[in-house]
Amino acid sequence: MFITIEGIDGSGKTTQSGRLADWLSERTGRETVRTFEPGGCEECAELRRIILEGRNFSPEAELLLFLADRAEHVSKVILPAIREGRNVVCERWNESTIAYQSSGRKLDPDRVKDLITACGFPEPDAKIFLDIHPQTALTRILSRTKHDKFEDEGLTLMRKVSDSYRELARRGELMRIDCEGLNEEEVFTAIITALEGVSELWQSR
Amino acid sequence: MFITIEGIDGSGKTTQSGRLADWLSERTGRETVRTFEPGGCEECAELRRIILEGRNFSPEAELLLFLADRAEHVSKVILPAIREGRNVVCERWNESTIAYQSSGRKLDPDRVKDLITACGFPEPDAKIFLDIHPQTALTRILSRTKHDKFEDEGLTLMRKVSDSYRELARRGELMRIDCEGLNEEEVFTAIITALEGVSELWQSR
Repeated sequence: MFITIEGIDGSGKTTQSGRLADWLSERTGRETVRTFEPGGCEECAELRRIILEGRNFSPEAELLLFLADRAEHVSKVILPAIREGRNVVCERWNESTIAYQSSGRKLDPDRVKDLITACGFPEPDAKIFLDIHPQTALTRILSRTKHDKFEDEGLTLMRKVSDSYRELARRGELMRIDCEGLNEEEVFTAIITALEGVSELWQSR
Repeated sequence: MFITIEGIDGSGKTTQSGRLADWLSERTGRETVRTFEPGGCEECAELRRIILEGRNFSPEAELLLFLADRAEHVSKVILPAIREGRNVVCERWNESTIAYQSSGRKLDPDRVKDLITACGFPEPDAKIFLDIHPQTALTRILSRTKHDKFEDEGLTLMRKVSDSYRELARRGELMRIDCEGLNEEEVFTAIITALEGVSELWQSR
């Protein structure tokens, strides 16, 4: 089973993907590979460095670099795991690309989607979106990283990305988990309940 | 006017693109920007380094890196030149990507083409293909670089790429110039004759 976890920074993706991977291994009796994007393999790490080190790439080139990272990650990590019968839990996937590149770099989300479709990446069995208020996420990030200030632009971008994710959830492209006011355990229970509720996920397995 | 020049290594692209740029400036009364791919701008040079330095990228990731290079080159060099009313002569373009990635990396040429289409790059006014026998090109390369040996694989790949280019020319996607047995001056004359023969290139200019 291949499951992706989406959400803005500070939404709890890393924590929940760890719990989900453990649960999934037990639930299915198969090993689970936990991974992430961008940078989830050796060559990907080099691409992540290039993308994030502040080079002045055009929005279109940056988008293609993220897709190159995904293609490499698919080829070296995700497809081999699936072929060997393992589950995969991946933090960030296509919907991150759509949400961030349309919000931050102002690319047309439908154009981003068309390009992603042309890449032919494997389709996850379930795509979870941890929905949390951007201000809540920001407070968490600040407490974690001990930044004494965080630019306004940061919160503005988080709001836009959050709105993009919600729009994707409304269109049925993400399984939305409302995390506001829930603790880690409650979010995890909500994820499991949502996954268990999708009967076709479990029928043939 | 935006003109691209294609062909295997040793086919004379660099020489002819210099002559073509000079001629085009005079013919149109506008400056001509001469450029190339991959690596035709500052950020592109970094991508070219990553692609060519022998990292073990999957064919799909490598393809997307070449397209990222093109997107950056379009954004930073080609579109600005066109907007400022300059001509552009570019060595290598989409057809290089189709020919090399399908021949060398065994990707389906139609899939490569679909991905290129989804990128929405500008369409050249003319795409010239300098067609020369791979063995002739290889002899030229060897005399130029003083390699005392050249792996068989090199010639095999050149043949495959050459065949891909010819197939694209047969489908009307490249303007083929038969360079075999012609000297530099004769090839140049053939290019100019071919371009002058396309009346719609000149009508509105």
